[in-house]
Amino acid sequence: MIETAAHLLTTLRARNPRVHCITNFAAMNLTANMLLAIGATPSLTYAADEVYDFTMRADALLINLGTLDEARKTAIPLAISTGKPWVLDPVFVHRSDVRLNFAKQFMPHILRGNADELAVLKPTSGVIVQTGAIDHVRDGARSINIHNGHPLMAKVTAMGCAGTAIMAAALAVEKDAFVAACCALIWLGIAGEMVKATAPGSFQPAYLDALYLLDEATIRQKARIS
Amino acid sequence: MIETAAHLLTTLRARNPRVHCITNFAAMNLTANMLLAIGATPSLTYAADEVYDFTMRADALLINLGTLDEARKTAIPLAISTGKPWVLDPVFVHRSDVRLNFAKQFMPHILRGNADELAVLKPTSGVIVQTGAIDHVRDGARSINIHNGHPLMAKVTAMGCAGTAIMAAALAVEKDAFVAACCALIWLGIAGEMVKATAPGSFQPAYLDALYLLDEATIRQKARIS
Amino acid sequence: MIETAAHLLTTLRARNPRVHCITNFAAMNLTANMLLAIGATPSLTYAADEVYDFTMRADALLINLGTLDEARKTAIPLAISTGKPWVLDPVFVHRSDVRLNFAKQFMPHILRGNADELAVLKPTSGVIVQTGAIDHVRDGARSINIHNGHPLMAKVTAMGCAGTAIMAAALAVEKDAFVAACCALIWLGIAGEMVKATAPGSFQPAYLDALYLLDEATIRQKARIS
Repeated sequence: MIETAAHLLTTLRARNPRVHCITNFAAMNLTANMLLAIGATPSLTYAADEVYDFTMRADALLINLGTLDEARKTAIPLAISTGKPWVLDPVFVHRSDVRLNFAKQFMPHILRGNADELAVLKPTSGVIVQTGAIDHVRDGARSINIHNGHPLMAKVTAMGCAGTAIMAAALAVEKDAFVAACCALIWLGIAGEMVKATAPGSFQPAYLDALYLLDEATIRQKARIS
Repeated sequence: MIETAAHLLTTLRARNPRVHCITNFAAMNLTANMLLAIGATPSLTYAADEVYDFTMRADALLINLGTLDEARKTAIPLAISTGKPWVLDPVFVHRSDVRLNFAKQFMPHILRGNADELAVLKPTSGVIVQTGAIDHVRDGARSINIHNGHPLMAKVTAMGCAGTAIMAAALAVEKDAFVAACCALIWLGIAGEMVKATAPGSFQPAYLDALYLLDEATIRQKARIS
Repeated sequence: MIETAAHLLTTLRARNPRVHCITNFAAMNLTANMLLAIGATPSLTYAADEVYDFTMRADALLINLGTLDEARKTAIPLAISTGKPWVLDPVFVHRSDVRLNFAKQFMPHILRGNADELAVLKPTSGVIVQTGAIDHVRDGARSINIHNGHPLMAKVTAMGCAGTAIMAAALAVEKDAFVAACCALIWLGIAGEMVKATAPGSFQPAYLDALYLLDEATIRQKARIS
């Protein structure tokens, strides 16, 4: 997997895939910047009459359930109906039954949540990613733990949301969703370890720098999986 | 008050209160990051069918009237109806009669505005905070001036908005709204003074670092009130 | 033009014009921060019942078509109807026919797009700005190329959107829209060259610093036009 993660980053940068993101307001800017830094091109609209066109011209789709208003509830099924490979981030789904019921109707290629979110969703199919101090990725047949990362990533808002968009970028260039999820998590975790900052304000710009400067040699040297 | 401000910061970090924020689009990201930096957990939705659930599971509420669209006008009374302690930031209320009339119907525990905003609102009850080069806090019986701060805070967008969210975080752990407002302003002003930057771009991440690194000793050493 | 660009910056800072911006969600924060850094005051609402009042109290208007939802479609004609000088940024207009048809009904004082966007709009009047490695500005009679800039500006999301807001700030203090567009592009490009960063995360805060610290002497020394 480590060698694949190294090669896939080069592939992603060569292909510059388009990732359409329906995400929450607090995450939009960081999500777009992380996609640009890794080598993808973001778009972000969720207007009902243009979201289908934008998603059709994209290579992968991110759906994030933060700030889930009526306009997003209308746009999300339209975007999914394009048939593009897609990743779901069910933010705070344990804090509102409305959000939980909305989330349960979908079958994403990759579902990324924390322990609280996955506990209420009880997913049984597709690739399941549980992020935390150690990230776990599993599908019906395979399972991997990724040990890379930095504690300050949890102190920057929308870092997890934007990281899920990086999984969508990986999925745009790697059809095996299990492999795409693992590679993205390896990139995200190592970028965190490359940052020297000791507080969250300076951590965020330095993290974008690290994603932009990440290379195959660093991935081979620093990846820790089990 | 200075000793209280020092202790309350430690209390806040120990309790990690949840603050639900209905705020404007430009402020969402910085508001969430400042809450994380001080030791609170933010949530931001204003969707009509989930804002009550989110606010009920929070410890305090921030209402900011920037970008006041129909969805926010629907959500704000629902959030307030939870009875949670709350702070109002009536952004630019002097630039639109619609916004002014909307603002006048509410009685927040803390009202935070600049001189222009408070002039048109003419508040007569609750805790009134007027921010500026010197911050003034008053209720019917008490009055304090806080002299801490940095001129570049006025050159970073949403710094005042996000600062009002920090008052809501303080209010989550201190029932006396006058004390909560004073403590938050002391933290915010001292964090500004800890920053070495000379221009607004580098000021913002350094300010988040300062909020995160702020400690009791620094508060005791630097607080200036009258 | 170089001497004019130097003087106009000083004029802008002395007058501190208000710029009302209807822009996309990912651009709001950076747009407001770049306007503050150059010396203008931003406002951002697009609520139907207050956008006219806000725009009437502003000195210029920016319209950006990113994340073009129903609320923005309602607000944009209301804001334009104030008669304030205005700039249009038709973001991604080539990716959605709905957006393209909406854009075609307007005649801005300055239209700013990239080659793809201008190709589908086929503008024939007003001031046309095509940004890229070299920026081109033309109206019926005049034409200028601006060679300043930094490649990392394309790796920071919303940098072009926020740059168009700076054109609106220039238009607030210079009636000749061709001159205003050229001056803004000179400022924006030189600020990019002032930044020492080698990756996009640290580039963005450093760019805001550069805009804030930009002065007449630097403009005279670094401007490159043809």
